[in-house]
Amino acid sequence: MAERKFKFWGWGYTNEVATPEERARLKAFYANRFSISDWDEVAPPAADEISLPAARIKPTSSLDAICTTDNEQRLIHSYGKSYPDSVRAFAREFPSPPDIVARPTTEAEVVAVLDFADSVSTAVIPFGGGSSVVGGVESAIKGDYLGVISLNLQRLDRVLEVDNVSRAARIQAGVLGPHLEAQLKPHALTLRHFPQSFEYSTLGGWIATRSGGHFATRMTHIDDLVESTRVVTPAGISESRRLPGSGAGPSPDRLFVGSEGILGVITEAWMRLQAKPKFRAATSVSFADWYRGAEAVREIAQSGLYPSNCRIIDREEASVMGVGDGQGHILVLAFENADHPVDTSMARALEIAGAFGGTWDDDTSANQDSHRSGASGAWRNAFLRAPYYREVLTGIGVMYDTFETSITWDRFADFHANVMDATRRIIRDVTGRDGSVSCRFTHIYPDGPAPYFSFYALTRRGAELDQWNEIKKAASDALIAAGGTITHHHSVGRDHRPWYDVQRPEPFAHALRAAKKALDPNALLNPGVLIDP
Amino acid sequence: MAERKFKFWGWGYTNEVATPEERARLKAFYANRFSISDWDEVAPPAADEISLPAARIKPTSSLDAICTTDNEQRLIHSYGKSYPDSVRAFAREFPSPPDIVARPTTEAEVVAVLDFADSVSTAVIPFGGGSSVVGGVESAIKGDYLGVISLNLQRLDRVLEVDNVSRAARIQAGVLGPHLEAQLKPHALTLRHFPQSFEYSTLGGWIATRSGGHFATRMTHIDDLVESTRVVTPAGISESRRLPGSGAGPSPDRLFVGSEGILGVITEAWMRLQAKPKFRAATSVSFADWYRGAEAVREIAQSGLYPSNCRIIDREEASVMGVGDGQGHILVLAFENADHPVDTSMARALEIAGAFGGTWDDDTSANQDSHRSGASGAWRNAFLRAPYYREVLTGIGVMYDTFETSITWDRFADFHANVMDATRRIIRDVTGRDGSVSCRFTHIYPDGPAPYFSFYALTRRGAELDQWNEIKKAASDALIAAGGTITHHHSVGRDHRPWYDVQRPEPFAHALRAAKKALDPNALLNPGVLIDP
Repeated sequence: MAERKFKFWGWGYTNEVATPEERARLKAFYANRFSISDWDEVAPPAADEISLPAARIKPTSSLDAICTTDNEQRLIHSYGKSYPDSVRAFAREFPSPPDIVARPTTEAEVVAVLDFADSVSTAVIPFGGGSSVVGGVESAIKGDYLGVISLNLQRLDRVLEVDNVSRAARIQAGVLGPHLEAQLKPHALTLRHFPQSFEYSTLGGWIATRSGGHFATRMTHIDDLVESTRVVTPAGISESRRLPGSGAGPSPDRLFVGSEGILGVITEAWMRLQAKPKFRAATSVSFADWYRGAEAVREIAQSGLYPSNCRIIDREEASVMGVGDGQGHILVLAFENADHPVDTSMARALEIAGAFGGTWDDDTSANQDSHRSGASGAWRNAFLRAPYYREVLTGIGVMYDTFETSITWDRFADFHANVMDATRRIIRDVTGRDGSVSCRFTHIYPDGPAPYFSFYALTRRGAELDQWNEIKKAASDALIAAGGTITHHHSVGRDHRPWYDVQRPEPFAHALRAAKKALDPNALLNPGVLIDP
Repeated sequence: MAERKFKFWGWGYTNEVATPEERARLKAFYANRFSISDWDEVAPPAADEISLPAARIKPTSSLDAICTTDNEQRLIHSYGKSYPDSVRAFAREFPSPPDIVARPTTEAEVVAVLDFADSVSTAVIPFGGGSSVVGGVESAIKGDYLGVISLNLQRLDRVLEVDNVSRAARIQAGVLGPHLEAQLKPHALTLRHFPQSFEYSTLGGWIATRSGGHFATRMTHIDDLVESTRVVTPAGISESRRLPGSGAGPSPDRLFVGSEGILGVITEAWMRLQAKPKFRAATSVSFADWYRGAEAVREIAQSGLYPSNCRIIDREEASVMGVGDGQGHILVLAFENADHPVDTSMARALEIAGAFGGTWDDDTSANQDSHRSGASGAWRNAFLRAPYYREVLTGIGVMYDTFETSITWDRFADFHANVMDATRRIIRDVTGRDGSVSCRFTHIYPDGPAPYFSFYALTRRGAELDQWNEIKKAASDALIAAGGTITHHHSVGRDHRPWYDVQRPEPFAHALRAAKKALDPNALLNPGVLIDP
C-alpha cells in the first residue's frame, strides 16, 4: 500500500477533502448567517509555495534511514490541527518547522533518536497522528535548543500479541485507529475507542493525551482501557506489569497516561479489548428546554444504566450540524452489548427522559441500525465530517472552534450560562458582530457532564490570530473561574498552559516537575507542554 | 458518647472479641485438623504488663492538647493488624512504640504537627484506623530520626458538605466507616465502599492504600470514587478541583491515591456517592470443578452485567469458613441497583454459570434479602467475623494469614496452581506438617481476577515470626515470579517492599522518589513505606 500523505494545512489525508457539496452548503450557510453576499476566499497552501529555513542539525549516518528533512514532511510536522494552526497554514506561515522528522521502525531506534537528540542538545516532540488541537505537537518551542526533532511513531504500527482469553492485546503505540481495528478484527475483538480523530490519531497519542472515546459513560477516557504501558524515557525503559487491577502504590500507568510526551515516549501498551456488540438500540429524544434535558441526562447518568451514547446537543448546535428538526434540543441515546439484549435498558432510559419532558419516535429505538439512521445517524455523520469543514471556513474567514470541559451537576446551570454568555460577549466585542456559541455533552458521569462548546465568528483577514487569542482567553477564563477543567479530553499542550497552571494544585506541579527532571534530566521531551523544567 | 478503645493486640474495640462459642468452635476445628488433644494457650496481653521506653521527644506546649504519651495509646499505635503484629503483641514485644500519639482536630493542627516534627527531626506516621496488614503504620522505622509521631486522624471525622444533586460529599479523612455512613444516611446517600475493615478503617486510609470495597466489579477500588483530594504535604497543601472527569495532564489525585502516607496527609476528599439500592438479587452457585467455576466468572466479568458480588470461594476455604455444603466451590453472586430491577441481569448471569456446570437453588435468587441468608449470608457473616478469629488462633499457636493479588485470565490456571503449590510446600517444609491453603476471588475484571489466598499452619512457639517470614517469602516469590501484583488492595507498606521493588518499573521508582523529595524534602512521612528516599 502506497503511504498516504497527511495534509500539512488541514484535516486528514490529501485526497480526502470537503466535498464540493459540503463547500457550497457551508458557504451558503455562513453567508446567510453573516449576511454576506460574496466570500473573499483564500485557497489552501501548496507545499512548494513555502520555503523553510534550513535544518540546523544533521542525523548521524546510523539514523539516516529513518530521518528526513523533506520540505513537506517538515510542514506536516510543524503544527497540529487547531484553529490557529489552520490560520497560520492558510497564511503560509511556517517559521519554525522541525529540523528533522524521524520515523523509527523499532523501539531501539526510538532510543537511538533520544540519544542522538541528547548529544546535539535538541528537543524531541513525540508525534502520533498530529491531530492535537492544543499545540501539543507544535515544533516552535522556547528554550536553548540547537534543534528540534519531530518523532513520528507511525511506523510502530503492529498488534504484537492478542490474548483472546483475557481480551487484551499488546499493541505498538504508533498505530492509527483504523489499522489497529483492522488487525484486531480477525480475532473478533475490538478496542472500541473512537475519538473524533480516530482515523488520524494513534494509540500512543490517545494514551499520552487521555483521549475521550465514543462511549458516553463508563469507559469514557482511554485511561481505563490501559492494562500496562511500555515507555522509553531518557532514564530508561519503563514497563509495567499486565494486571487487571492493582493496589501497589500510585499507579505507574497513571503517571504516563496524560503525560503528553514530556516524561517519555510510549512505544507499546497492553490494551483491554471487547467483543463486537451484538445487541444495539439507539434513538434520539427531543427536549423543548435545555436544562430539563440536562436533568434527564443527569438522572440517566445516575441510574446505573450505562448507555453507550447519551449526548445532548443544544438547538443551535443541532441546527449548525443539520441534526433534528431545528425545534428541540436533541439527546442522542444508545445502548450496546455483546452478551445480552439492551431493550429493557433503553426502555428505562426513555422512561426517565419522558419524565423530564423528552419526546421521541417510538419506531426507531429498537432498530439494530438506528445508530446509523435518523437524528443519531445524522449526528454521527456530521461529527465525522466536521473536522474537514475547517479547511473551508478558515479559507472564507470564518473562525470555527471548540473547547471542552467538565463540571459537577450542582454547578452546571450557572456554569453553562456564564461560559455561554462570556463567549458570546467576547465574540461580539472582538469581531464587532454576533457569532454563535452552542453546547453539547460529550461524556456524562454520575457527578457531572463534560460540556463541549462550539463557536463561530466572522474574522477580519490578518487579525484572525489576535481575535482568536482574545476569544480563547475570555472563554477559558470564564470556564476556569466557574470551576471547570481546562480540558476534559483535548489535553493541555501549549495552548492551555495558562489555565492549567491555575487549575493544577501547586504541590502536584512540584511533584510533576521533579518526576520530569528524574526521567528527562536534560528536558529533551516536548518542552513547554504541561510544565516548565 | 464515650470513646471506645481499639485493642492494641487484636482486631476491633476492646469490648468486641471472639465469642465463647467462636473460640470453642475454632479450637475444636483446628484441634481436629492438626490432631491435637489439648492447646497450650497464651492469653492476650494487658496494657499494664508492658513497659515502654520513655518518649524521646516532647510536644511544644501549643500541641500539648492534641498529643499524648499514654502507654496504651502508644501500644495501639505501635502495630497494625497483621499476623506478625499479632504474634509480637501476644509475645508482649513492643520495643519501638511511637514517642507521641497526636490526634489533631483541625487541618491546621495537622500542619502544626508536621512543622513540629520537622523541627525535631522526627518521623510522622499517618494513622487512620490502624487496620494495615502490611506494616503500613508500624512505628519501628529505620533512619536517623530523633523520634516518631503516630498521627491519628480520627478526630477529623465529619462530613462537611453534601451535594445531593451531583451525589457527592466533602468528607474529612479521619472518619471511620460506620460514622461516615451514619452522617450520609439523613441525605439518603451512601458511599457503598465496604472493605472488610470497614468498621475500623478511615476514608483517608482507604484512599492512601487503594482500598478494595465490596463491589466485585466496576467500582472495585476506592480510586474511582474519589472526586477530589485535599492533602497536607510538607511543601504545602494540595487541593484538586471537584471534577467528574478530566484530561488535564496526569491525574493529581491518582498520585496521592495509593501514596500510603509518604507524600502527604490526606485531610479531606470529595467522594462520589450513590443512592441506597432498592432492587437486589443474590444467590450462590456451586461448581464441582474450580477452574470451570473460574471460567464462568470470567464470562460473567466479560458480559457487561456488572454484578455487585461475584466471588468464587474454593471448597477448602468454604469449609474453613463454614459456607455451603462442603461439596462444591461456591460462587456468591449478587446484583443491586437503586433505579431498576436486576432480575434479568441475574437470570443471564445464572445462564452463564449453568453453561459452565454451575448449579443453584432456584428459590433464593429473587429474594430481596437473600444476600443475608443461605450461603451468601453465611459467607457475609464469616467474612465480617474472620478478623476476630486471629486473636484466638495466635493464642493457640495457629498461624492464619492471607495474601492477595491479581492476574490476567490467560495465566490464571497456571498461576493459581503454582502459588497454591509453593505455599503448601513451604508450609510443610517450615512447620514439618501439612497446613492448608485456599483461594477465593475478591474482585473480578474483564481481563482477570483478583485471587485471595488464605492459609493456616501449626507454628512452634517462639518461632512464629521466622516461620511466617519463610512462608511469606516463598508465597510472594511464587506470586511475583508468575506475573502477579504483590497486592491488589492490601497495599505495600513495609512488609511487601522486597516484591514491590521488583514489580514496579525502575523509571517509575525514580519519578516517585523525586516526587517524594519535592513534597517531603526532609523525608518525615512514613519512612520505609513504598520507597527509600
